[in-house]
Amino acid sequence: MFATLTEDGNAVVILDQTLLPHQAVTCRLTTLAEVAHAISSMQVRGAPLIGACAAYGVALALHEAADDTALESAISTLGGTRPTAVNLHWALQRMRRLLAPLAPAERATAAWAEARAIAREDAAANAAIGGHGLALLAELAGSRKPVKLMTHCNAGWLATVAHGTALAPVYAAQRSGIAVHVWVSETRPRNQGLLTCWELAEAGVPYTLLADNAAGLLMSQGKVDIVVVGADRIAANGDTANKIGTYLKALAAREHEIPFYVAAPLSTVDFSCPTGAGIPIEERDGAELGAPGRFPVVNPAFDVTPAGLIAGIITERGICRPDRLKAWHDES
Amino acid sequence: MFATLTEDGNAVVILDQTLLPHQAVTCRLTTLAEVAHAISSMQVRGAPLIGACAAYGVALALHEAADDTALESAISTLGGTRPTAVNLHWALQRMRRLLAPLAPAERATAAWAEARAIAREDAAANAAIGGHGLALLAELAGSRKPVKLMTHCNAGWLATVAHGTALAPVYAAQRSGIAVHVWVSETRPRNQGLLTCWELAEAGVPYTLLADNAAGLLMSQGKVDIVVVGADRIAANGDTANKIGTYLKALAAREHEIPFYVAAPLSTVDFSCPTGAGIPIEERDGAELGAPGRFPVVNPAFDVTPAGLIAGIITERGICRPDRLKAWHDES
Repeated sequence: MFATLTEDGNAVVILDQTLLPHQAVTCRLTTLAEVAHAISSMQVRGAPLIGACAAYGVALALHEAADDTALESAISTLGGTRPTAVNLHWALQRMRRLLAPLAPAERATAAWAEARAIAREDAAANAAIGGHGLALLAELAGSRKPVKLMTHCNAGWLATVAHGTALAPVYAAQRSGIAVHVWVSETRPRNQGLLTCWELAEAGVPYTLLADNAAGLLMSQGKVDIVVVGADRIAANGDTANKIGTYLKALAAREHEIPFYVAAPLSTVDFSCPTGAGIPIEERDGAELGAPGRFPVVNPAFDVTPAGLIAGIITERGICRPDRLKAWHDES
Repeated sequence: MFATLTEDGNAVVILDQTLLPHQAVTCRLTTLAEVAHAISSMQVRGAPLIGACAAYGVALALHEAADDTALESAISTLGGTRPTAVNLHWALQRMRRLLAPLAPAERATAAWAEARAIAREDAAANAAIGGHGLALLAELAGSRKPVKLMTHCNAGWLATVAHGTALAPVYAAQRSGIAVHVWVSETRPRNQGLLTCWELAEAGVPYTLLADNAAGLLMSQGKVDIVVVGADRIAANGDTANKIGTYLKALAAREHEIPFYVAAPLSTVDFSCPTGAGIPIEERDGAELGAPGRFPVVNPAFDVTPAGLIAGIITERGICRPDRLKAWHDES
C-alpha cells in the first residue's frame, strides 16, 4: 500500500516516481528547494499532484522564513518548475489569495492547513470523477466482455493525491464488478506508461502495455471501446493540453468512432486561456530520448487536442461537452 | 564509408544493424542458417535489403548442399523469418522460378548470379525512386527555407542494398543543392529512428530526432512540409503496411493537409493481396519494449495505412496514385 503524498510532522513524504516501477521508495521533503526539485525532476508528477505538492512547498517555505518576501519568493520559485500544468498555478494563486492578507507570522500555520485542504479536495474531486466516469463504463459493459479502455501516460492515483483522474473510473468499475481491460501506451520519452502498469498491477486490474506507435492499429482492429486520458491544462473552449502523443490517439479515435474522454478536476480548466493556442508547451531535455548529446533532439512534453475531438470532460461535477465548459461553469 | 550488403568470395558480408548506431561492425554470413538468423534477429532489416539478403541465403544453401531438396528447404526456412515484408517472398519466388527447372548441380552458380542481379536491381530501382521523389522536393523548395520532411523508421540506405527508399529523394536533393531537414521519429520499440539519425549524420544531412508521440504536435505547428515513409508490403489497392506508427502519422498528415508519400520499389507491391486486410502483421517479442516478463505486452511490428491517406507511391517507374496502382501496372 503506497501513497503519493503524505504528511509527516513538518515534512511532506512523497513516493519518488523517478524510481518506479523498479523501486517504490519514499522521499522526505522539508524545504522549498527540495519541493521545487521534486517537481522539476518529476519525482512528483501529474498535474493534480503537482498542485498539492506545490501548496505544501509554500507552507514549508513559510516555516523556513517568516519574513514578508518569503511568500512571493516561494510562489515564484515553485511557479517556474513546470510551465504547462495549470493546477500548479491554480494552487499557488489560491495560496497567495489566502496568505497575502495575513501578517507574515500567521502565514505558516494557515499555509499548512490550506495545503492540506487542497490535497483533500483533490482526493474528493477524483473520487467524484470516478463515479461519473463509472456511468460511461457501465454503459459500454453491456455484454460479458471486459470494457477495453485505452489511456495514455499516467493519470492514475500516482498522478494525484488519491484515486487518479483517467483511471478513477477504472477503479470505480473494479469496485462495482464491471470488468475493464486497460491498454497502456508506453508514453515515450519518459515511459510513464510503466507507472500506469505498476499501479494497475498493484490494484489487480488487467492491462497490456503497448508501444505508443501501436495505438492506431489496435483501434483499427476494433480492440478499443473508449479512450480516457488526463489533462495538464484545459482552455476555456475545451482544447486540452496533455502528455505528448495524446493528440495522435484522439485523431485515431475519431477515425474509428471511438469515444475520447478527458478526465480532470475543474482546477485543470484555465478559463483565462481562451483556446489551446495560448497554452505554453514545455520543452524538456533531449537527453530524455536516451541518446544524450549524440543526436539533435526536439522534446516537447505536451500537445494540444482540439475540443472537437473530445466527446466529454469528466469532472468532479459531472461530464461536460468541451464546448459547453464555459457556459456550464458560469451557470453553476 | 559503409555498405549494407557486399560479397566476399563465397560469403555475404552485412553491416550488423543491431549494433548501430553505437558500433558499425560487419558480420560474415556463409550458411543458410546464418542468413536466416541475420534476418529474423534484424541484423539485416528493411524490406528491400531482406529480399536481396534472402536471395543470397538461397545461393549459400545451394553451395552447402546440392541435393534436390535443398532449394525448397532453403526457401521454406528463409520464408519463415519475417511474415510482413513481401520483398522477401518476392525474391524467394524469383529464385524458385529460375532455379527449379535447372539440374541440382547447376543451381548453386545460377543462384549466386541471380542474387547478385536482385541486389543490383534494388540499388538501381532506389536510385530511380530518388530521382522521382526529387521532383516533389524541388516543388516544395520554392523559398530559401529547407524542405521539412518527416519520415518514420529507417527507409534509408541501411534498409536497402543502396540509396534507400524514403530517403533516396533526400539524398538526391542533397546532390542537387536543395536543402532538406529531416524529422526522424524514434520508432519504438526497436528505435530504428536512431539508424536513420546515424545514416543522415554520416551523409551530412541535417535532421532532428523526436519521440514518436511528438509527430502530431510538429504537424499542427506547421513544421512539416511532407511525410515520406517506406513500405513492407503494398496491397493491390494501395493500402500500405509499414512500421508500426506509420498509420498515426498518416492520420495527422491528412488532418494538417500535409502530403503523405510512400516510397518503395514495385517489388514491394503484392498484387495477389487485394487490400490491406490481407496483409499479415508480425507480432514480435514483448521484450522489445524493455520490460521483459514484467508486464503483459502487445508488440505488433507493422500497421496498415489505407490508400486514401496516401498522396502517391514513389516507385522506380514514377509516382503513382495508390488507387491507380493496379491499372498503372497492367498498362505497362
